[in-house]
Amino acid sequence: MADTHMISVETLQNRVQNIFETCGVRAQAAEVVAQVIVAGERDNCKSHGIYRIEGCLRVLKAGRVDGQAIPELHDSGKAVIEVDAGGGFSNPAFDAAKALLAARARETGLAALVIRDCLHFSALWHEVEALAGEGLAALSMCPSYAFVAPAGGKEPLLGTNPMAFGWPRAGDYPYVFDFATSVAARGEIELHRRAGTPIPEGWAVDIDGRSTTDPDAALAGAMLPFGAHKGSAISTMIELLAGAMLGEFMSKEALDFMGGGGLLPRHGALVLALDPQVFAARSGRDPIAEGEKLFAAFADQGARLPSQRRFAARVKAQRDGIALTTAEMDQISRFETLGLDALID
Amino acid sequence: MADTHMISVETLQNRVQNIFETCGVRAQAAEVVAQVIVAGERDNCKSHGIYRIEGCLRVLKAGRVDGQAIPELHDSGKAVIEVDAGGGFSNPAFDAAKALLAARARETGLAALVIRDCLHFSALWHEVEALAGEGLAALSMCPSYAFVAPAGGKEPLLGTNPMAFGWPRAGDYPYVFDFATSVAARGEIELHRRAGTPIPEGWAVDIDGRSTTDPDAALAGAMLPFGAHKGSAISTMIELLAGAMLGEFMSKEALDFMGGGGLLPRHGALVLALDPQVFAARSGRDPIAEGEKLFAAFADQGARLPSQRRFAARVKAQRDGIALTTAEMDQISRFETLGLDALID
Repeated sequence: MADTHMISVETLQNRVQNIFETCGVRAQAAEVVAQVIVAGERDNCKSHGIYRIEGCLRVLKAGRVDGQAIPELHDSGKAVIEVDAGGGFSNPAFDAAKALLAARARETGLAALVIRDCLHFSALWHEVEALAGEGLAALSMCPSYAFVAPAGGKEPLLGTNPMAFGWPRAGDYPYVFDFATSVAARGEIELHRRAGTPIPEGWAVDIDGRSTTDPDAALAGAMLPFGAHKGSAISTMIELLAGAMLGEFMSKEALDFMGGGGLLPRHGALVLALDPQVFAARSGRDPIAEGEKLFAAFADQGARLPSQRRFAARVKAQRDGIALTTAEMDQISRFETLGLDALID
Repeated sequence: MADTHMISVETLQNRVQNIFETCGVRAQAAEVVAQVIVAGERDNCKSHGIYRIEGCLRVLKAGRVDGQAIPELHDSGKAVIEVDAGGGFSNPAFDAAKALLAARARETGLAALVIRDCLHFSALWHEVEALAGEGLAALSMCPSYAFVAPAGGKEPLLGTNPMAFGWPRAGDYPYVFDFATSVAARGEIELHRRAGTPIPEGWAVDIDGRSTTDPDAALAGAMLPFGAHKGSAISTMIELLAGAMLGEFMSKEALDFMGGGGLLPRHGALVLALDPQVFAARSGRDPIAEGEKLFAAFADQGARLPSQRRFAARVKAQRDGIALTTAEMDQISRFETLGLDALID
């Protein structure tokens, strides 16, 4: 396309990192936040790519995230490690703790990382992929904003609460899934609203709890969990494990804290890391080779594993660069030049 | 109803336990297996109540479960504890390990129990309720038989892989969910087959991968996971964490091992226990009180928590006894008198 500009992963990384530094984020944190955003763009996961820069800058401008925060590790030497993000972005906090989490999981078999008081904007696959890269299985979850009605209810209470899982593979990208526990992402409803098109039945209810296909009525009402009562139960589990259990916000308190869903949410997160080699040791079996049997059976019947489109986009981006539109390139330039002043209120 | 006989929980426990002892199960194991079955009946969870006795006796008669097996604990002193069921029922193995699992979780924050080589027939809520009774959050999962096609596939590969979660409540039954990761239980399709009624759209595909409402075609084809690709991903995670990671059977190997789904499956199981007091400590918040805020918000909008019907049945059964039909009472008597010879091949 004439409107397309190719940019290398490295160049985009440098430019995004520079934007965050310009906007008051300390260098190390800016690097990690930029890595996560560029990884989203690289994997053609547009909703978590450079589109996220503006949202991050908005919380910086509003003074609701601390760009200078230095993550503080707390390690009791047991199976639970904590990192206090101190009101900074979640990613530098995870980054500061991940080596210790991986080491602890190898030592004890499984370990948990509690991330406290972080500003959260990124997909969770980044975390579970990092741990899978260390040969570990990983499960990550966090609350979000209370936009989803529990099964049998009609008022927003649960978050769109994402959950991601990673499993290391032999000589291949890991097995990774990452999804919201709502039927659809809130952004998808917003896109229908802008386009003036109805949303599919089953995505949401209106303020009276009636099923609706009207995006405005859906945004005023409540989104629905995936998989009816089962998805609702999993989303509730995420509120409990990644909110109540940590003594951090659940999705309702996160929404109250920010005074609405206009800014990115602050809450905690929970990451579990498990070492298959420890768990399998007494069996005499190679757990990674066992996993490959399952994946081979998927392939045999033509069933795709999750994240494959993302990995294919990654290969392409690393080889050919990332294609951005003129509008996207212009926005990056504007952020570079004007910093937080580029934001139109 | 005229056809109904009331029997106390204690009397039913004694009679079921006696059946298992008569059929060659050592006393302590018979007691635990009977407890689990009677708990199902007590909670009016009929599919996991006395209906299960016959299935358990069939594997005993076939020599595919060891009624005399003594669970062997293996404790490295770290966060992963193992119990080898030695080809016996899963429940006595869990019972033998649960105090150690709870103690370890309190000490390290979280701990995992690996159950190896067990015959599995029970719901998982029993395990997570036991741990919630100790003030712990718990997550339990296991593979089963490969009857479910992955999303995007058409051949059975994944199990109906159940997953249960428990969370302790203040002065109330715990928050508990327990469900199969298939849309429906296999038994429900079987009931439609016997009744000659079609199954709902979305439960299963035929051997050519086409959606079917014919129970026979469904049983010959493949069941479907709940929640489309998201449920399929969770079911895959269960294969990996509770099968491959432990070096124990995944659902396909479990099916091959038993030579089909006629007998109850043998495989492993994974139980995670987390101590909310350890996780919340640095926050200064009471995690249990935080959880209650969420449950209160469920109640405010009239949304029921899972397992409430079961708990209501429990209260009633503990007060009034359990109502069994004449046919059910007769079968219990037959098993008591004839033991394994009561089974008609």
